[in-house]
Amino acid sequence: MKRSNFFLPTLKENPVDAKVASHRLMLRSGMVRQSSAGIYSWLPLGLMVLKNIESIVREEQDKISQQILMPTIQDAKIWKNSGRYSDYGKEMLKILDRNKKELIYGPTNEELVTEIFSNNVLSYKDVPMCLYHIQWKFRDEIRPRFGVMRGREFLMKDAYSFDLNEDDAIHAYNKMFINYLNIFKKMGLKAIPVKADTGPIGGDLSHEFVILAETGESKIFCDSNIFKQSIDNIDYEDKSLVSKIVKHWTSFYSSTQETLDENLYHSLVSSNNRIQKNAIEVGHLFYFGTKYSEPLNASVVNEDGNKIFVKMGSYGIGISRLIAAIIEVFHDEKGICWPESVAPFKVGIVNLRQNEKNCSDISQNIYEKLCSTGVAVLYDDRNEGAGSKLADMDLIGIPWQIRIGPKSLKNNCVELKQRNKNDEVEINISNIVNEVRKKIVKQ
Amino acid sequence: MKRSNFFLPTLKENPVDAKVASHRLMLRSGMVRQSSAGIYSWLPLGLMVLKNIESIVREEQDKISQQILMPTIQDAKIWKNSGRYSDYGKEMLKILDRNKKELIYGPTNEELVTEIFSNNVLSYKDVPMCLYHIQWKFRDEIRPRFGVMRGREFLMKDAYSFDLNEDDAIHAYNKMFINYLNIFKKMGLKAIPVKADTGPIGGDLSHEFVILAETGESKIFCDSNIFKQSIDNIDYEDKSLVSKIVKHWTSFYSSTQETLDENLYHSLVSSNNRIQKNAIEVGHLFYFGTKYSEPLNASVVNEDGNKIFVKMGSYGIGISRLIAAIIEVFHDEKGICWPESVAPFKVGIVNLRQNEKNCSDISQNIYEKLCSTGVAVLYDDRNEGAGSKLADMDLIGIPWQIRIGPKSLKNNCVELKQRNKNDEVEINISNIVNEVRKKIVKQ
Repeated sequence: MKRSNFFLPTLKENPVDAKVASHRLMLRSGMVRQSSAGIYSWLPLGLMVLKNIESIVREEQDKISQQILMPTIQDAKIWKNSGRYSDYGKEMLKILDRNKKELIYGPTNEELVTEIFSNNVLSYKDVPMCLYHIQWKFRDEIRPRFGVMRGREFLMKDAYSFDLNEDDAIHAYNKMFINYLNIFKKMGLKAIPVKADTGPIGGDLSHEFVILAETGESKIFCDSNIFKQSIDNIDYEDKSLVSKIVKHWTSFYSSTQETLDENLYHSLVSSNNRIQKNAIEVGHLFYFGTKYSEPLNASVVNEDGNKIFVKMGSYGIGISRLIAAIIEVFHDEKGICWPESVAPFKVGIVNLRQNEKNCSDISQNIYEKLCSTGVAVLYDDRNEGAGSKLADMDLIGIPWQIRIGPKSLKNNCVELKQRNKNDEVEINISNIVNEVRKKIVKQ
Repeated sequence: MKRSNFFLPTLKENPVDAKVASHRLMLRSGMVRQSSAGIYSWLPLGLMVLKNIESIVREEQDKISQQILMPTIQDAKIWKNSGRYSDYGKEMLKILDRNKKELIYGPTNEELVTEIFSNNVLSYKDVPMCLYHIQWKFRDEIRPRFGVMRGREFLMKDAYSFDLNEDDAIHAYNKMFINYLNIFKKMGLKAIPVKADTGPIGGDLSHEFVILAETGESKIFCDSNIFKQSIDNIDYEDKSLVSKIVKHWTSFYSSTQETLDENLYHSLVSSNNRIQKNAIEVGHLFYFGTKYSEPLNASVVNEDGNKIFVKMGSYGIGISRLIAAIIEVFHDEKGICWPESVAPFKVGIVNLRQNEKNCSDISQNIYEKLCSTGVAVLYDDRNEGAGSKLADMDLIGIPWQIRIGPKSLKNNCVELKQRNKNDEVEINISNIVNEVRKKIVKQ
């Protein structure tokens, strides 16, 4: 993509009302624009990141569940049937249609997915089943703030598991636990599970996945050793392996403020391993048994001919919020530093002297070659000063920068620099495309 | 995908309240389920088709515009500023948030995109600009009907062009015209442009793209020669070529009921070339100049330092509706016959005798080989009768069927059949994977 054709309205100044780094940087880098309180439009650069995050989530979720798509607008009736119509209070956006029928903008989908299951699944042969969707939700927050971190209209991945018995249901929960660790790892994040409250979703068992960040709105308490654990892709059907991995991860004390047991915390974690920090919630697991399947009559007939209410869990990841969370972790005073897996472009070309023919010819040539090998490149071909172009490229955070100017061209070279390091190196023009490709693949 | 793990609740009986073929078949083939009047959930098979349609639209639109994503919920204020708050009447879903602020669920996005342009684009250097998004819309239809053909919550691609002068704006319109012809062609559809009314969008120039279908709700009048024209991908920046192609296509008389000039029609089209048929609208182009840019103050400063209100057009394609339209064209008494480009799977394997080891081993083997070459396959591995499995495979409309049973296995063969033809052929087991791949690539 050539910058001269790309809708990327970057801002030189910090917007006054943006209080956290991610909000400031998403506005300054032209990723989003607010259209109403807590409601954002995604401009091309922001949408590219949103899609990358979505792809990572989808690729992992497809290993353990099937994608569907429920609508944004739901009938109020199913919420009355589950007894949750009033639980959400004013956060639920209630709507009357032209026939005065009560609708709501879905803040989550336990009711609707349970209804779908109940109307379409009859036999025990169809469970275990796990369905997920990626759809916009609305929660009418009293104080929408921090940009897309706490917006009102937000994109969420929510999955729902249906099982015959508690043992299978816990296996579904455990699979999701490991799947989430892998999802966050792929985004370059160190997300850890903490024991959590179940809140308005309800149920017996719940974990939040959080990442540490000064601007985080929750406080977590944990054993620092949990950050040293690693995760890999596994055979999700290996029940005992899955259970073993989850037992290992949950053997390190971790809790939110609400679930903190101070005595336990102090007895289990030695003082120099205790971490008490602000964190951002990026995912949440709930197991709630028959809380929804009973009132909404989601049952199957088992092998013995008996009607069994399915045991359910739900599992959410805030897709749009994750972008803000990633920026909170990966930025410096100059701007965003995207992890490669979510970066909107892998390579940025900065032509330092747009009006010198040699610089432009070589920039264009490298740009075309990189594009033809399938690398996502943003080429800043505008007639602007070198300083302003470099500052913009730092701001938007593309992982690799190729800087092309008369000084290095004298040696038949261009400069290659990694966004988050101070190690620009001169590379011969004839090698630059291969060098860059090698570095991208290696990551 | 193995059918035994796939959430595909097909129905044997026709749902009584589904009046058109596409509605019946989308319900029977387990693609969608209604959750409220005119509001649908997309089950895995339906979502796959929705995504395929979306990809085709995106791939073509990316050639002439940039993708953004505007929210579903909009501030009522911008609609008051444009003067359209009341134009939509009761079809507009109006909402009050917790602070009694007036919001609406976007039925279209002229206002919001104009505001984004106005707040972020200042110079003539940034135009021409064309932005599109693919987002759920809501229109509170008085009689939602025919399934997703006329739903209330529906997925639409809408694009918006911004130009300095009318000449450039017409070029943007013409590019979209050709782009749409290519989009529909890629889906296997023969969509033709007809001169249309501008309706609540407003403006001077408008074309609908329609496909012929008995169940269509509009009536069109045209010269049958228009169906013989072909289109190809072109260099969209070649203004005179673009204009020439559009002139050629619009040289054939075509109109809706509203724009029909009966005398002109009869004088231009000889009686045996006159087509008067029902049609389904699948796309719409509008040119409306400064209708929105003036009230919403979307202007740029031109080279001479003068403020110019940009000339705009908008261009929609009903993504979810297209699925129903495609089914109206491509179905028979047994079910759907997907064109390959939008089919959820390219190949379906029907194991006619699931409990015979030989059949199952060979089915599994062919399934694995096809998957490993990247072909999207649905393998019906359920323990059901052959008749029921074949009927289901016909119903869901996968273009190629491989039927595996004892009769052809005696000759070391399996049967290959195209969904929409009666020409099953026996093919040696050792050749089947290559044969199928060749046929898919050829399409």
